[in-house]
Amino acid sequence: MVKKFIIAIDLGGTNLKCALLNSSLEIKAKSSFSTKSFKNKEELIGSIVSAINSFTLRLKIAKGSVLGVGIGLPGPVDTFKGIVHFLPNIPGWKDVCLKKILERETCLPVVIDNDAKLMALAEYKAGSAKGYSNVLCLTLGTGVGGGLIIANSLYRGKDNAAGEIGHIPLNERGPVCGCGSQACLEAYVGNGRIIKEARKLFGSDITLEKISQLARSNNAKAVKFWDEVGKKLGLALAGIVNLLNLDAIVIGGGVSYAGKALFESVKQVIRLRAMSVQAKRVSVFKAALGSDAGLIGAGYLVRERLLA
Amino acid sequence: MVKKFIIAIDLGGTNLKCALLNSSLEIKAKSSFSTKSFKNKEELIGSIVSAINSFTLRLKIAKGSVLGVGIGLPGPVDTFKGIVHFLPNIPGWKDVCLKKILERETCLPVVIDNDAKLMALAEYKAGSAKGYSNVLCLTLGTGVGGGLIIANSLYRGKDNAAGEIGHIPLNERGPVCGCGSQACLEAYVGNGRIIKEARKLFGSDITLEKISQLARSNNAKAVKFWDEVGKKLGLALAGIVNLLNLDAIVIGGGVSYAGKALFESVKQVIRLRAMSVQAKRVSVFKAALGSDAGLIGAGYLVRERLLA
Repeated sequence: MVKKFIIAIDLGGTNLKCALLNSSLEIKAKSSFSTKSFKNKEELIGSIVSAINSFTLRLKIAKGSVLGVGIGLPGPVDTFKGIVHFLPNIPGWKDVCLKKILERETCLPVVIDNDAKLMALAEYKAGSAKGYSNVLCLTLGTGVGGGLIIANSLYRGKDNAAGEIGHIPLNERGPVCGCGSQACLEAYVGNGRIIKEARKLFGSDITLEKISQLARSNNAKAVKFWDEVGKKLGLALAGIVNLLNLDAIVIGGGVSYAGKALFESVKQVIRLRAMSVQAKRVSVFKAALGSDAGLIGAGYLVRERLLA
Repeated sequence: MVKKFIIAIDLGGTNLKCALLNSSLEIKAKSSFSTKSFKNKEELIGSIVSAINSFTLRLKIAKGSVLGVGIGLPGPVDTFKGIVHFLPNIPGWKDVCLKKILERETCLPVVIDNDAKLMALAEYKAGSAKGYSNVLCLTLGTGVGGGLIIANSLYRGKDNAAGEIGHIPLNERGPVCGCGSQACLEAYVGNGRIIKEARKLFGSDITLEKISQLARSNNAKAVKFWDEVGKKLGLALAGIVNLLNLDAIVIGGGVSYAGKALFESVKQVIRLRAMSVQAKRVSVFKAALGSDAGLIGAGYLVRERLLA
């Protein structure tokens, strides 16, 4: 039987998204659940199993026609052993052999990875960074995560822990960061910090979406707000551009919808602070695949790992 | 005829070093000239030609037994086209087709590259980082240069400009840097800056060698001096370790002789400021090949490029 389908799962702090992809990695069916609605790890794993089985049962897809299941997780993962080390924003996960559990429950091959890496893979294969060789993709959310493409391959580092752009220090001293250090990029531009700043400026019922809207319609205060966020982000990126001589940077996550105010500021700081050859080389893009990037990346991961 | 010899050249701001390497890349003969003794670019190139020819003439090495000439240069280089873009510390070089000139004058194949990249290649192949996969090698001198080994290969970036660790910002604002930016690592720990600090503390006739000696014999003021340098360096490295999940960092150049005071400080800052998985993974070493690293790296470059 031709194994033409892939089941993709993207587990986030907010939503559990599941999709059925065809052989062109197009999304043919999709479901979504609130992550918070599961009482514990076991319930969450149970719902992943049901989601997988529901695709094969409800859509009458024979398991023999499914190449495998790809899963992106918001935390450090041993992709080769299939173990989730922990999930910073979902309590109760500690060295869970997720691959083994799911393979037993679904009788399908399962591949897992960190979600920021899958987003990078998707944007490199099918999104904004298609055709570039050395790429940093970052997601701006509660956390500031990243994935690196180096010489046309997803770069993992020895422990699959590469890409932690959120924990590049911006100053010798500065705000305390969730990682235990201080003055990390995430401590300045993670959603937690910027929403606090936003409330001081715009009042307590403001949302980041609202400030993005205001900036897109040229509200001066909102433009200035995103300009400041862009300055912090641009500085971290300038250092990385000098170090890695990247050809592309892709910015995704909720904050990327701030638009021109954010992107122009990032680009300007790179021009000012990076060396001329490196600054000229790098293009800065908004992520093209939006909230589907994790699912599509999971599809590419399954292909790379199970067709190789 | 078996091409068993390689001629290696390491052009620095201070010395022009030339060596004859055998097929095991051992140095069999060596010569050295003061770079400052040459009036201009033409004289300097002439002396490189003489040095090459003197090996073949003086040591009676048939040109047919020389695989090629490898040259390391202290500035940005197009290694594939053989062009030297410019040399920050040697005036008069602007887009010089060095490979073509030398091949015409010596009738030998010539390969050129940036010196920090060759040092990294040498330390990875035959020095402190042998056996590691993802390595940053840095040289602390007037400039702070670096070379990256990623997934067991020298990583260049699109313009052969990767590795500029000296130009990672340590703060949003800080001392002006030679690159046109501010607060770069080099602006804090380049020799120019630290010798100024040293004179304030130790008097105007102090040298960095002397402070290194003092630190090795536990002079408290000297230990504190290198500890401060190590804190700046360690912070830049902590960010890179988070980003790249490196397994090894190799520190070379004159300042690396400061010994324990510098290295312990670097390691402590990495432990404090990098994420736990990444901090645990990375080993920090002193460069093993000393001032020969550039020559040996030039040997590996010739092998990689001309035997491939």
